Amino acid sequence: MELSPLQKERYKYQPKLPEILKKDISAIVAVEGEATESVSDQQKIKELFPYTYGMREVSFAIGEQCAKEGRIKAGVILSGGQAPGGHNVITGLYDALKKANRENTLLGFRKGPSGLLEDDYIEFTDEYIDEYRNTGGFDIIGSGRTKLETADQFKIAMKVAEKHGLNAIVIIGGDDSNTNAAILAEYFKAHGSGCQVIGCPKTIDGDLKNDVIEISFGFDTATKTYSELIGNIERDANSAKKYWHFIRVMGRSASHIALECALETQPNLCFISEEVEQKEMSLEDIADQVVSSVVKRSANGDNFGVVIIPEGLIEFVPEVKKLISELNDVMALNEKEFNGLESWEEKYSFMEKKLSKESFKVFSILPLDIEKQLLMDRDPHGNVQVSRIETEKLIISIVERKLRKLKESGEYKGKFSALNHFFGYEGRCAFPSNFDADYCYSLGYNAFMLIRGGYTGYISVISNLSKPATKWKAGGMPIVKMFNLEQRHGEKKPVIRKALVDLEGKPFRYFASRRAEWAEKTCFTYPGAIQYYGPESVCDITTRTLKLEHS
Amino acid sequence: MELSPLQKERYKYQPKLPEILKKDISAIVAVEGEATESVSDQQKIKELFPYTYGMREVSFAIGEQCAKEGRIKAGVILSGGQAPGGHNVITGLYDALKKANRENTLLGFRKGPSGLLEDDYIEFTDEYIDEYRNTGGFDIIGSGRTKLETADQFKIAMKVAEKHGLNAIVIIGGDDSNTNAAILAEYFKAHGSGCQVIGCPKTIDGDLKNDVIEISFGFDTATKTYSELIGNIERDANSAKKYWHFIRVMGRSASHIALECALETQPNLCFISEEVEQKEMSLEDIADQVVSSVVKRSANGDNFGVVIIPEGLIEFVPEVKKLISELNDVMALNEKEFNGLESWEEKYSFMEKKLSKESFKVFSILPLDIEKQLLMDRDPHGNVQVSRIETEKLIISIVERKLRKLKESGEYKGKFSALNHFFGYEGRCAFPSNFDADYCYSLGYNAFMLIRGGYTGYISVISNLSKPATKWKAGGMPIVKMFNLEQRHGEKKPVIRKALVDLEGKPFRYFASRRAEWAEKTCFTYPGAIQYYGPESVCDITTRTLKLEHS
Repeated sequence: MELSPLQKERYKYQPKLPEILKKDISAIVAVEGEATESVSDQQKIKELFPYTYGMREVSFAIGEQCAKEGRIKAGVILSGGQAPGGHNVITGLYDALKKANRENTLLGFRKGPSGLLEDDYIEFTDEYIDEYRNTGGFDIIGSGRTKLETADQFKIAMKVAEKHGLNAIVIIGGDDSNTNAAILAEYFKAHGSGCQVIGCPKTIDGDLKNDVIEISFGFDTATKTYSELIGNIERDANSAKKYWHFIRVMGRSASHIALECALETQPNLCFISEEVEQKEMSLEDIADQVVSSVVKRSANGDNFGVVIIPEGLIEFVPEVKKLISELNDVMALNEKEFNGLESWEEKYSFMEKKLSKESFKVFSILPLDIEKQLLMDRDPHGNVQVSRIETEKLIISIVERKLRKLKESGEYKGKFSALNHFFGYEGRCAFPSNFDADYCYSLGYNAFMLIRGGYTGYISVISNLSKPATKWKAGGMPIVKMFNLEQRHGEKKPVIRKALVDLEGKPFRYFASRRAEWAEKTCFTYPGAIQYYGPESVCDITTRTLKLEHS
Repeated sequence: MELSPLQKERYKYQPKLPEILKKDISAIVAVEGEATESVSDQQKIKELFPYTYGMREVSFAIGEQCAKEGRIKAGVILSGGQAPGGHNVITGLYDALKKANRENTLLGFRKGPSGLLEDDYIEFTDEYIDEYRNTGGFDIIGSGRTKLETADQFKIAMKVAEKHGLNAIVIIGGDDSNTNAAILAEYFKAHGSGCQVIGCPKTIDGDLKNDVIEISFGFDTATKTYSELIGNIERDANSAKKYWHFIRVMGRSASHIALECALETQPNLCFISEEVEQKEMSLEDIADQVVSSVVKRSANGDNFGVVIIPEGLIEFVPEVKKLISELNDVMALNEKEFNGLESWEEKYSFMEKKLSKESFKVFSILPLDIEKQLLMDRDPHGNVQVSRIETEKLIISIVERKLRKLKESGEYKGKFSALNHFFGYEGRCAFPSNFDADYCYSLGYNAFMLIRGGYTGYISVISNLSKPATKWKAGGMPIVKMFNLEQRHGEKKPVIRKALVDLEGKPFRYFASRRAEWAEKTCFTYPGAIQYYGPESVCDITTRTLKLEHS
């Protein structure tokens, strides 16, 4: 196999651990804090989790632990979408296991949770692990989107755990996967299995965080990668001075990625879905903000700019939400009739008859190709595929229409030439930044400490992350503490509450305080490529979001 | 102005110079070699360039130069598309000027060659220059696409040069701009102006190179940026194992960028326009290569992959070239009638009648949105806008059609889900790699040495680039040496011959020797982000293309 020069060098990188985890494992003790409650719906959730509700938070300190005896055999699973650093969680966990006892073993279940159900696994060796140190991707064992959520699945999982004599399973995943990790932990306990379940907070989206979990891993590297590209495009825009670049970035439910990229690059505009929803903004409102910036900048002689758009934006626009729900209903209720229509014109006028007046108005202002996409490009359940909509092109087309009118009326004399980009896959498997390499290695190493302490239903917690790694703290939090009840498929389900962008939080407020200036002037900043070596100010800093949140 | 941490650190970077240029300027002498001839059409070109034909190649060595006396005042122009390192050419030129004599001055003409014609300039100061050291972009003075090619323009340029008392003008540009630099040099000499003209080889496309110029600047950084992204996507593909990614990269006339990215990342497939043209491949042939790889990999259980497509590919497919030329003719000859057609069906059947049978067949296999784009989205001259065609989507749609057939016949049982990307603007304004930072600084510094030596119509040459910077050589080459006659707008014109990918050259041959394996297996390599610090093996290496060409 041919390796890049960087990959060869990154193998040699020794990730930083919090001071406490550098101690001899036998010199570390788990200190228990207060008993916890779930963030809401306490009574109901307590009933659902009789065995794991109310557990205490844990932090690690110097001392002697009354620890598990004998060999430990653990399993690990990567769940859901890729995030830089996943490999390091596994190498940290492996190193801690082996440091505690060379006889300890680690199984990696392949292709996500289904690997556990199908008992498809590998046993890690030093040689195997060494090929994945400080690298991006989830290819070490693969990942998958199977959800561990039914009693039947839990039963199989328990059988597999028993077959291997697993002391613990570590699940590396986002909010859904950690939710299921807690449910699995409860199931194991309720059914007399001694197998512990530990979660690790993964997702580039940054929406798995709270008072204790400061950030999920991968967010740092992914946003640095996107910010590199956005900064490069900004510098190009400012050099060529002839294009408006509309850049959509990943992040469907929450706009943390867009916001962090905006803080790093200071574009002319960045939309935040949470604000769009709160202010009930329409597509016209969004386009008007762009138009306002285009017109002002044009008056300064600047017919160029950069706009950041979060992937999920369109789903937060109330009128679009309504339109999509009506479209789904209309097409479900009139499936046969609709599918029998041949020409586009017939389909269009069918919708004119069936949709509410307001929704048809929204539909009719969309560009033709997006209208077609909405009616024709449906998922296996017949639903509109919202995620396929190229929101950046939609906004461009509305802006173009508005600018044409302003030009006719003489209120605008500039040139508007737009280009569009989408960044997502570029950042999910980058070599983890030093921050993510260190953080993930610590999360995995720390997961072992929780296993050793006998905990189950806990998520691995490394905190104080805005400080240098030496000052990081290590511990664990009962996952159930993050639970609330949410409507899922018609039922109230206990789930981890997703962390959306807090419009009262410091990162958003900082952005909001600067954006009027950014929209008119050119305040671009150019972060450049992620650096793994060199001055600490360049290679060891984490996100602006984290810095602002903890300032 | 807010600066990124990397930008602050990059200001401190001291670019490396070839040993000879580190000497005291007064200790460097220009050594002249043999008189040169143009690469072809010598007689005709000699007639066109009576004053600058046949000049000698120059290299710099230790010795005493009979140099220009007094103060030197120079001007500099950035011409055409951005390329990382442009700022360093200017800082190198500035530093050399100031090192030779603090009284020397440098003017920067703004927004490209038009700045010279409009006498729109700034005079550089230390403070101004320091803000642009080792940064990407052309925003230091801006660039532009105005071509200096008419006698009227030359006359104005001469006036402006006289007004300022310019001793020299340095033009930083691609093949066209350097062609015009040579013509301007000839004009100045013929008209008794003492103003010298020096060119510098710029273009990310890498198509301005020959025996003497090993590579144009920017190619290194741009390809490293694209390769970072392609590698990240490869790792994502290999982790998720569910998508085929089709990645179009910049490079319209030549496929050097695609080839270099393929050498760096080892994708499953990479098309090279020069080969497509030479082998007269059809769209079906191209799609068949993809299908073959998809089917083979699917049989191995791998329903994922990565394909690199050069931006200009479609223009090299003979049948498409013919179709486009026919479309342009048909629409020009029948402009009124065609524009009077209302529905798409009418336009389509109009083309069926007017196009040749073969061309209509090619047209009819295109996806609907590309057919529409060809007929409707025309440039101000009414011509089809080939560069707007999203070739990657076109190939995907043909591949999908072919796979459906193979599925029906049972020859293929896999899943094919494709995503597409285009990378261009992301790489043109990145912070220059150490290689480009050093190379560009040396080019600019060396341009001053040519000015000091009294040369005009020369291009700045830094060579031996596959070796460490200390071993680089410095000199100059008469631009006319690169000339041949080519048909332009119905006339034979003297121009620099573009360097296309040499299908007999080592880079292509290496690629060709490996690609069968890459198409079937997963041989991805992951270059990661450009590193400016750290191990030399990571931060000081240049492209595989250069390494192979000089091995």
